[in-house]
Amino acid sequence: MTKIAVLGAGVMATALTVPLADNGHDVHLVGTHLDEAIIDSIAANHVHPVLEVEIPSNVIPHQLADAEAAFADAEVVMVGVNSFGIDWAGEQLARLLKPGQRVIVITKGMRADEDGTLHILPEVLQAAVGDLAGQVPWAAIVGPSIAGELAVRRDTCVNFASTDLENAEFLAKLFRTSYYHVWPATDFVGCEVGAATKNVYAFGMGFANGILEKMGPEASKKYVMYNYSAALFGQGSIELKDFIEMMGGDRATGDGLGGVGDMWVTSAGGRNVRAGGFVGQGVPFSEVRDVHMKGITLEGVAAIRVIGEALEKLTARGVVSAEKFPLCRFLYDIVAKDAPLEVPWDTFYGGIKN
Amino acid sequence: MTKIAVLGAGVMATALTVPLADNGHDVHLVGTHLDEAIIDSIAANHVHPVLEVEIPSNVIPHQLADAEAAFADAEVVMVGVNSFGIDWAGEQLARLLKPGQRVIVITKGMRADEDGTLHILPEVLQAAVGDLAGQVPWAAIVGPSIAGELAVRRDTCVNFASTDLENAEFLAKLFRTSYYHVWPATDFVGCEVGAATKNVYAFGMGFANGILEKMGPEASKKYVMYNYSAALFGQGSIELKDFIEMMGGDRATGDGLGGVGDMWVTSAGGRNVRAGGFVGQGVPFSEVRDVHMKGITLEGVAAIRVIGEALEKLTARGVVSAEKFPLCRFLYDIVAKDAPLEVPWDTFYGGIKN
Repeated sequence: MTKIAVLGAGVMATALTVPLADNGHDVHLVGTHLDEAIIDSIAANHVHPVLEVEIPSNVIPHQLADAEAAFADAEVVMVGVNSFGIDWAGEQLARLLKPGQRVIVITKGMRADEDGTLHILPEVLQAAVGDLAGQVPWAAIVGPSIAGELAVRRDTCVNFASTDLENAEFLAKLFRTSYYHVWPATDFVGCEVGAATKNVYAFGMGFANGILEKMGPEASKKYVMYNYSAALFGQGSIELKDFIEMMGGDRATGDGLGGVGDMWVTSAGGRNVRAGGFVGQGVPFSEVRDVHMKGITLEGVAAIRVIGEALEKLTARGVVSAEKFPLCRFLYDIVAKDAPLEVPWDTFYGGIKN
Repeated sequence: MTKIAVLGAGVMATALTVPLADNGHDVHLVGTHLDEAIIDSIAANHVHPVLEVEIPSNVIPHQLADAEAAFADAEVVMVGVNSFGIDWAGEQLARLLKPGQRVIVITKGMRADEDGTLHILPEVLQAAVGDLAGQVPWAAIVGPSIAGELAVRRDTCVNFASTDLENAEFLAKLFRTSYYHVWPATDFVGCEVGAATKNVYAFGMGFANGILEKMGPEASKKYVMYNYSAALFGQGSIELKDFIEMMGGDRATGDGLGGVGDMWVTSAGGRNVRAGGFVGQGVPFSEVRDVHMKGITLEGVAAIRVIGEALEKLTARGVVSAEKFPLCRFLYDIVAKDAPLEVPWDTFYGGIKN
């Protein structure tokens, strides 16, 4: 039995306690300051109110005030917040983490310096904890995981990435069950970049639905726009691998669970796809953000803004060629500049030379 | 204006006449012996009865008896039959084709020798026409193309593959319109192998639907099985690239339109996915074939049988390692041996070593 402390009680962090609890571990789920009602609900009846799933009774919920006790003697610490909470999580780790504890991160996204240099989020956490960063092994979970599906124990396949293979294997063994299939991976950067950039491309996968909706019910009676979406998916999968390579990872990582597999599931639905649907209907993105989806967290759109803005700077500095990442740049123009939905097809796939 | 003769009036071949006709070419659509009613319909009212779409009036329909006139002086000859008609198409080409005519093939699939050696279908046609094979340039169309979407002029992106780049570019220019986006490609083998093997993996993308259906409506009220399908998609996309490499193509071809792009669209629906759905419900495949989908053409299942059987022989001969292509082998066991739906997850992604 291993003691594991989870920081954040969002849907994904909580779902991950299910295989851990099924394996009989000592699991402590610590809510953030935004999770108080969730922790109360789990404490009262073992149900996560957003997941609407019963959490095993051996998962111990804690309010943030009890974090110190929950983290004490934990062998593994999981960072379970989303990308918007990464700085806050860094502060918490700085006060709670102890040398030798293994850190596993599920947060997905990228951060850019003023000059456009991109970083994966575990680097942000490492910077936040200072010297401690070198005294703990780091890992991350990537791969196609709808939280609720995992929470109801449906087959889910993921990579546990760590530059230290032994660390990845140790952690994989803690989590592995008959329904949670875990492959260790050592391309830490590649896994993280794939997981972050797949969110970029999910947004575009909503366009076709919106275009068809605007055309009216007659337009999709017999034929929809799968060819259109497939062409975006293919270009997205290539750009995802280009990003992995640019950041120093292995292109082949983009073929697997953290790459096209994850992109497939993210494209199948969710809030980013829904936001893309409004753009497909002809709504300027600023209106989608301020009216139709006001207040709704859009991690994919946030990733487009960070990465798209960084690309402009990296291109200006001559680090990236202007021909690379045409789809990401186009998505950025839509979310940052209200560009109209005129897909620059001929710039995709290396460009059509007439 | 270029004269183009199309052999076969199925949905895809007919859809491809739309961009050609829009570009003002002289297009002759020749039905097979199975297409008589289709040709009659197009001759009578310019509507393809299966597509249910109006075909431009400058597409001239012909019954097979008029094939010689339609082929005479054609600069381009398109082979538009499906994989079940490939031998028949070879016989027709042998009598109709003239030196210097450019051949472009849309048929997808593979053929195996007795010892398991696999061939792409253009090789089958080349063998059928003998010496003529060296006297005509060969090309093929691959990429995510639902025929009806192209026929109603919705954005569609494809590769025209030929070992002769100039030939690919010449043909691309004939077809290119504002909605039909064509990229020349020179990895002819890679494009063909990707297009053939993507059909293999589409079948498995139906499993999740069937499993959920069997579980009853309550099971998918809140959560479905996207994680499951995404893991199959990811593994399929890697095997597709492994097949491309095994056949002498470039792995990177599998990243593009003829690879994951095409796999995405094929997985989104269609008859093979529906057949996989029955297997998901627990129906042995022999019963799916003989009862539930009796008489329905399943190109994906046919590809699984050809390639899966060849894999067994190639493995026995030591040409392919037994660890490679676990998903394709599993799909083969289902369609050829009524194997139960127990996905061998741990053999995927290079295998989990416990």
